[in-house]
Amino acid sequence: MNRESLKEKAAKRAVEYVKSGMRVGIGTGSTVKYVILELARKIKAGELENIVGVATSIESENLARENGIKTEDLDERKLDVAIDGADEIAPNLDLIKGAGGAFLREKLVELQANEFIVVADETKLVNHLGEKMPVPVEMVRFGFEATMKRLESFGKPVLRRKNNEIILTDNGNFIADLKFENGDPEKPAAELKQLSGVVETGLFLGMAKRAIVAFENEIKEFTR
Amino acid sequence: MNRESLKEKAAKRAVEYVKSGMRVGIGTGSTVKYVILELARKIKAGELENIVGVATSIESENLARENGIKTEDLDERKLDVAIDGADEIAPNLDLIKGAGGAFLREKLVELQANEFIVVADETKLVNHLGEKMPVPVEMVRFGFEATMKRLESFGKPVLRRKNNEIILTDNGNFIADLKFENGDPEKPAAELKQLSGVVETGLFLGMAKRAIVAFENEIKEFTR
Repeated sequence: MNRESLKEKAAKRAVEYVKSGMRVGIGTGSTVKYVILELARKIKAGELENIVGVATSIESENLARENGIKTEDLDERKLDVAIDGADEIAPNLDLIKGAGGAFLREKLVELQANEFIVVADETKLVNHLGEKMPVPVEMVRFGFEATMKRLESFGKPVLRRKNNEIILTDNGNFIADLKFENGDPEKPAAELKQLSGVVETGLFLGMAKRAIVAFENEIKEFTR
Repeated sequence: MNRESLKEKAAKRAVEYVKSGMRVGIGTGSTVKYVILELARKIKAGELENIVGVATSIESENLARENGIKTEDLDERKLDVAIDGADEIAPNLDLIKGAGGAFLREKLVELQANEFIVVADETKLVNHLGEKMPVPVEMVRFGFEATMKRLESFGKPVLRRKNNEIILTDNGNFIADLKFENGDPEKPAAELKQLSGVVETGLFLGMAKRAIVAFENEIKEFTR
């Protein structure tokens, strides 16, 4: 089965956890696209009613609205469930997220959810975080060189660019991708967030309660 | 002596610590205005040469430039000295800053300084932080109601407004003023910074090495 079909399968399984009347956190990315389309299909078919989506990016919000899903901004209310992808999934369901750049809003939405479900294909499973991916770190623009310097005591930070332009997040900040050369990026997660100039990291520790992972021939669910 | 003369006196004493060739962090606020004017006077008089100012706000940067002080943006280089005001000064020189709203940039600049000097009049001295002032907390706009809710476990947060409009910082964020009803705001400083949605707090702990405080009849210096 090709990669896209795998993503679609995992997304459909995740949407089975959405029930009528729920407030649903909607992540960002290529797998979540299928979550949005499946939610929209079920709403149109009358299989789900009174669904409110709370999106983690302008991109997902637009896609949800275009497909007829009612959306609202995140406020102080809890969400029933949130569904999102990940870049790396450790055996204990700790995650690295942020390759797409929306991880700050994703974290804020997913912290408000009673259950956070991560969906992915098997290529995202790792034995330990940082195996393949750097940890994205969202930084305040002002003085970002000094902040990057501070990040050097943890690993090798690279300012994220696209076509040679420094990328701005939806929140107007910069991103450094921090490659951990030795050791476990989970340990310094709190120290990283503590640094002045750092807004948030792409380490999602202790947050996902369930992972729905598409393998070549089956969908597996893992719970914390 | 009136309050303005006291501020001016303290500012002039602080500028005595600036030597030719220094990179100088320039704070923000009513006392720092006199620091800028005194720096400019000394440069014009030839008493100081090769001074570069690194400002903590657009306001201070403009005032410095208008008065002929060369300014540069903060980068990864260290500053020799930084001079700024404070809203509360504890006996150990821990500070609350941020009534003016520029505390994130102030902290980023002052962390880069080899010596951070705080200037104030005696009304800013307190026995313990939080005695008179709330602790300003700069928050990401997205989901700020959820962030405010999280702040409630520490004290009473009030969203900062001016003429009924929510104030935006130079970094495009919101500010909550967090009143500690019982206990010492220094203890949860790290926990506050750790919260998702929180960018920075106005608690400047362990940073100021020297305080220059104007009393009615004298200037006193305190060192850590």
